[in-house]
Amino acid sequence: MSQFWSALVHDLTPYVPGEQPKLPNLVKLNTNENPYPPSPRAVAAMQAELGADGATLRLYPDPNADRLKEAVARLFSDHGITPTQVFVGNGSDEVLAHAFMALLKHEAPILLPDITYSFYPVYCQLYGVERIAIPLGDNFEIRVDDYREYAGRNGGIILANPNAPTGHLLPLADIKRLLTDHPQSVVVIDEAYVDFGGETAIALVSRHPNLLVIRTLSKSHALAGLRVGYAVGNAELIEALERVKNSFNSYPLDRLAIAGASAALDDTDYLNRTRQAVIDSRTRLVAQLEQIGFEVLPSAANFIFAHHPQHDAARLSSELRQRGVIVRHFRQPRIDQHLRITVGTDQECEALVAALGQILSA
Amino acid sequence: MSQFWSALVHDLTPYVPGEQPKLPNLVKLNTNENPYPPSPRAVAAMQAELGADGATLRLYPDPNADRLKEAVARLFSDHGITPTQVFVGNGSDEVLAHAFMALLKHEAPILLPDITYSFYPVYCQLYGVERIAIPLGDNFEIRVDDYREYAGRNGGIILANPNAPTGHLLPLADIKRLLTDHPQSVVVIDEAYVDFGGETAIALVSRHPNLLVIRTLSKSHALAGLRVGYAVGNAELIEALERVKNSFNSYPLDRLAIAGASAALDDTDYLNRTRQAVIDSRTRLVAQLEQIGFEVLPSAANFIFAHHPQHDAARLSSELRQRGVIVRHFRQPRIDQHLRITVGTDQECEALVAALGQILSA
Repeated sequence: MSQFWSALVHDLTPYVPGEQPKLPNLVKLNTNENPYPPSPRAVAAMQAELGADGATLRLYPDPNADRLKEAVARLFSDHGITPTQVFVGNGSDEVLAHAFMALLKHEAPILLPDITYSFYPVYCQLYGVERIAIPLGDNFEIRVDDYREYAGRNGGIILANPNAPTGHLLPLADIKRLLTDHPQSVVVIDEAYVDFGGETAIALVSRHPNLLVIRTLSKSHALAGLRVGYAVGNAELIEALERVKNSFNSYPLDRLAIAGASAALDDTDYLNRTRQAVIDSRTRLVAQLEQIGFEVLPSAANFIFAHHPQHDAARLSSELRQRGVIVRHFRQPRIDQHLRITVGTDQECEALVAALGQILSA
Repeated sequence: MSQFWSALVHDLTPYVPGEQPKLPNLVKLNTNENPYPPSPRAVAAMQAELGADGATLRLYPDPNADRLKEAVARLFSDHGITPTQVFVGNGSDEVLAHAFMALLKHEAPILLPDITYSFYPVYCQLYGVERIAIPLGDNFEIRVDDYREYAGRNGGIILANPNAPTGHLLPLADIKRLLTDHPQSVVVIDEAYVDFGGETAIALVSRHPNLLVIRTLSKSHALAGLRVGYAVGNAELIEALERVKNSFNSYPLDRLAIAGASAALDDTDYLNRTRQAVIDSRTRLVAQLEQIGFEVLPSAANFIFAHHPQHDAARLSSELRQRGVIVRHFRQPRIDQHLRITVGTDQECEALVAALGQILSA
């Protein structure tokens, strides 16, 4: 507490990201990173931008990152997306933050699932956005019909698809229903994990001016360390984001990030190969965990959400840590008996299963 | 205008950064970039982080960027600065934005010079911060005594030192007076340009809990393209910034930026050599401009602020552009007859002076 702090600061409860441990040799399955390196074409593009002497770094980046917006538009050209329908930012977290300020801050409260990405309530606090949490169903599924009760009297809707930390996927038909049930509301679909098993709602952008789809290069493109995210939506929604961004920081993406991300998006072959490898590992991991008694929710993401009927999740998490394996445990109602486990390489998954086997039989 | 926009978005007038032209072969003296490349040690550190396959980029960066905070603290260890007194962000613009939200948003209006970095009023708009503009003196100088009228009834003070776009430097004694005149107010000193001729107010941090000094690696460290800025102040002020940052974006600095910036800060020899070269070029440029009739304000920055009594500044700017030389002109009361000209290499400065010579004698 300090006389110098704004009133807002006193009330903030910041988001707590998963641990980024500085110890080597840990099996790190706690922050949904990709187990494979990024596209070699992305690495080559960054090396080229850096050059022998980094001379271009003395110059500001393109504040509009046109090259990156064009790469995004190219990727979704089948859906008719143009660069004016693309916004880019410093990771999808920055894009989400701007979306809360620019598009979700209205008189009426926004709607969001009671269990979802835990940064959403933090943004609500930061920008003074009221919210109503809509409970997930008994199998942790989002039920879009439950949102209808608030049709015409909400300030927007946000959800992650696949949802986090559950991995549950909504089919596109449900997203479409949400968009038509709430034509006055901006519907934000956070597709951080969609490449691991879902269909993108970007297919619906041209018909639904109230849809904003937010994505990241941190997961399926293995570029968590580079901080690049983007949004696709009607040009009017994008303009709102640009206005806020240009009132906050003209150049949130550095030259290396623009170069690397643009090349990564172009390398769809590499994306397809590596995401299939993760999907295959996920199938094997789920089978192995079920064999030792875990119940695992169906996942369309690069993580699984599991619980063991006979073992406390917090204890499992802490005993795994003692054995050098980190997973994520949330001390939160309804999910405090679950573990969220990132799908690593097969070797990492086997190390996890072996450690769990030891713990369960101890 | 859109039903989907928040009320705030309708009222925003975003900051307009200097043009980043995509044409080659321009003499670009409009955004105060360094004419020299960044430190070779910074480039080597980024190459090392990138490695052969970019494998570390699959992992999130350190959300606290401890390595960078330690480098900043090391730089100012003579002033007793520790890492808990350091905040880092995506360019000084992001650091400034967080400072407005965390430390300058109070009931009372903030005080700032009428002519200064034009992003400050944009932040006020973004976060609903009232402001009182205190006029510069007749020679475009900041007069700290003029701020005393509002002592005890302001929400904070922000100024750039050297000021932009004037280049005018306040001596440390004046900053000290401001701090003691306004002990209840956070005083933010934006030192983007201080390495080119000023003394840093970081020397005053240990005695003044209300002082926040903000700096950037974009100018003197030639890393505008990498997006790194930082703040130094009392740990209590830093905590407010961390709370807002961690409610906005956990990882605003990517792995390459953390590696490059840390190494750049350590390379003080390179900094000293290149900034001296810029200072020497500035001296020559001022003399040449005065010779062709310009009046040039004394500058402690890597730019100069000049006007010609017989020639309209807007016309000069546009005729320079036709000759491939870009400078910055502000259509703003009091300064619309001035040009802000970045100090480039001697060769670039000569191209500017030659072009001006042609224009004046045409």
